[in-house]
Amino acid sequence: MQSRSVDVEGRRVVIVVADKGDDAVAAITDASAQHGLQAAQITGVGGFSRATLGYFDRDRSDYTPIPVDEQVEVLSFLGDLATAEGKRVPHVHVVLGRSDGTTVGGHLQHAEVWPTLEVVLSEVGPQLAKRLDPQTGLALIDLSQVAG
Amino acid sequence: MQSRSVDVEGRRVVIVVADKGDDAVAAITDASAQHGLQAAQITGVGGFSRATLGYFDRDRSDYTPIPVDEQVEVLSFLGDLATAEGKRVPHVHVVLGRSDGTTVGGHLQHAEVWPTLEVVLSEVGPQLAKRLDPQTGLALIDLSQVAG
Amino acid sequence: MQSRSVDVEGRRVVIVVADKGDDAVAAITDASAQHGLQAAQITGVGGFSRATLGYFDRDRSDYTPIPVDEQVEVLSFLGDLATAEGKRVPHVHVVLGRSDGTTVGGHLQHAEVWPTLEVVLSEVGPQLAKRLDPQTGLALIDLSQVAG
Repeated sequence: MQSRSVDVEGRRVVIVVADKGDDAVAAITDASAQHGLQAAQITGVGGFSRATLGYFDRDRSDYTPIPVDEQVEVLSFLGDLATAEGKRVPHVHVVLGRSDGTTVGGHLQHAEVWPTLEVVLSEVGPQLAKRLDPQTGLALIDLSQVAG
Repeated sequence: MQSRSVDVEGRRVVIVVADKGDDAVAAITDASAQHGLQAAQITGVGGFSRATLGYFDRDRSDYTPIPVDEQVEVLSFLGDLATAEGKRVPHVHVVLGRSDGTTVGGHLQHAEVWPTLEVVLSEVGPQLAKRLDPQTGLALIDLSQVAG
Repeated sequence: MQSRSVDVEGRRVVIVVADKGDDAVAAITDASAQHGLQAAQITGVGGFSRATLGYFDRDRSDYTPIPVDEQVEVLSFLGDLATAEGKRVPHVHVVLGRSDGTTVGGHLQHAEVWPTLEVVLSEVGPQLAKRLDPQTGLALIDLSQVAG
């Protein structure tokens, strides 16, 4: 994984290029830590050789795994990075495309990159701070800490 | 629904966090009205407990409803807010993910939020003003009003 | 196709509105050339009356075509514009929605616009310069040329 932090009109942007075989989630978490990024919007494009997605099961308050065991195009890769209880938490939803154009999607848990994954992390201010929601155990944006 | 208007390097951004049971479209329209926002790019992440999507039928020049009657992940939530004939019109397309990873998508008509929907409205200038297209009845961007 | 270049807080943004019957890829390439844009992030919304998508076949190092012969909603339209070996290369992945809400997606090769396609090209600096990857023949971001 390689990453660079650049300034785009005063806003910090971290560009992450994951290599063949990298884990997509670890690449984002590691690059964010290297550059001291705490909150960001995330977009990406690329391909995966395999992935595990998740579906949030309301009854169990946990993710049911959705295995994807084939080479897929990353059609959509959208989410945010937040810091909850001092830990960086990337939250990314993906839509993946198979060879026949059918799609599979969910919450990104793990993914093996091939041939590349290009991720753009656009920093946002503390207004996107998150807190754990006691009912679901999910990290949600907490607007009660934001003036305005 | 809670919302805050913040400045991100001189650009106004309205963050909307919809609560369990809120209608997603009404949350966007109401938050835009509260903050006087007229044109914006829209992105979002979250989950729905049910939704009605639409497919634009060319012959009827109207949307055919696509009901979604189960808990789904919001995998992609992209669109814009425009003001057509004095009325705020959010135009959002979504891709939703079911428990087995299969997807369903379309134009967002209604959606019941669960457990959350986090929407970012990034203001754009009057260059995205829309006008009604007489052939389709759709609100389209009108570049004839833009210099440059 | 109509296009305008506007400044959004010091950042150049080219808005492209493709007309009924336009090819989506040609519209992006032509508008970029008209405004001298070399690298940009791309988002879009609209509809297609037909399209050809691609799936990158690892064994052949080439795209397998996925034909879409019906009117579809453009649910997601995400990618970037780069300049590789002096030539502008838009790289866009799409998810398209059919009348029953099922989806089809892939790398955008060709698409006939109907009734409209509204594309926003947000300029980025030379940090997104690409080079051809000898193993796959794909144009990938080259961070070795970026300081920071």
